[in-house]
This record gives sequence, C-alpha cells and structure tokens, in this order.
Amino acid sequence: MISENSYFDDNVKSLGYTSATGKSTLGVMEPGEYEFSTSLHETMTVIEGQMTVKLPDAPEWVTYKAGEAYQIEAHKSFLVKVSTQTAYLCQYK
Amino acid sequence: MISENSYFDDNVKSLGYTSATGKSTLGVMEPGEYEFSTSLHETMTVIEGQMTVKLPDAPEWVTYKAGEAYQIEAHKSFLVKVSTQTAYLCQYK
Repeated sequence: MISENSYFDDNVKSLGYTSATGKSTLGVMEPGEYEFSTSLHETMTVIEGQMTVKLPDAPEWVTYKAGEAYQIEAHKSFLVKVSTQTAYLCQYK
Repeated sequence: MISENSYFDDNVKSLGYTSATGKSTLGVMEPGEYEFSTSLHETMTVIEGQMTVKLPDAPEWVTYKAGEAYQIEAHKSFLVKVSTQTAYLCQYK
C-alpha cells in the first residue's frame, strides 16, 4: 500500500512505501519553516529545490541542494527552511 | 499547492509541484504493469526500485534502476512493469 501523509496544514505532503532497504517516504514541502521530530534514523536526500537545515546540536544552518543528503538520528528534532517547493526522499532505518 | 494524484485504482500515486525548471511529480508505483500516455515531454528518473519500460516505437523492454532516467515525447504512450514498490521523479517540459 502507498500511504498518503500530510503535515503542517497540508504544507508538507508525502507518500510512504517500502523499498529494498526499508521504509521510505517521498515528499514535497511548500515554502516555510518546519520543525520535524524523528522516531527512526532518517537519511534525507533533496530531489528538487533546496533545504536550509539546522541539525540537532549543530551550531549553524546548512543548505542542501538537489542530490545532496543529510542524516538525523532517531528521537531528535531538526529545523528546515524552504524558499521554493522542494522535493525530498526520506529513508528510514 | 501540492497536488495529490491517484491512478490505476490507487496503484500509482503522485504529488505534483513546480520546480525551478517546470512542473514535476514525485510518485510511487505498486507492483504491476501500466500504460501511461503523455501530454507533455517527460523525463522519468527512478528514485528507488526499478522499472522495466517499453518506450514508444522501441523494439525491446529496457530496465532502469535507481538514478537512471528515460525520456518520452509528448502525445505518446509507453508501458512500465514494476515488481516492487518503485519511486520516481517525473519532470515535464
């Protein structure tokens, strides 16, 4: 089954599925700033657009462009700023 | 706005948005065989999983894996076979 998820008043939407390596979601974010909390380890890859991210315990914001990825441990919060509609892949483990 | 699309009895779902280069959809296909018709030129990139594709006028099926892409002209039909849940990016122009 392909799950449909919506967060932040429909400003972030994603589709959930299972790949060969585990659970994944494909998603799109509207321009805005969001705080996400993880329950599992996440690898986030930007597909189109870009994200400016403040990772847990990181002192600074870092911008990730299409094709670039970052990781977040389980049970952490991180901040994401997006200025154009931005597509991502999130892989859980 | 992030549009939500569903095809083939919910076996293919996608999210539509606009990138810097034009309209795109991110989608997931359940295992199955599908015939798609294009209204615009499409560049299809496999994100996770793989697709076996018969392009318009192509004599043979070709398999595209994660990170690989193929193109279809506007106003054509093509066939896609998927054996596991497969994620893709479709860019229109």
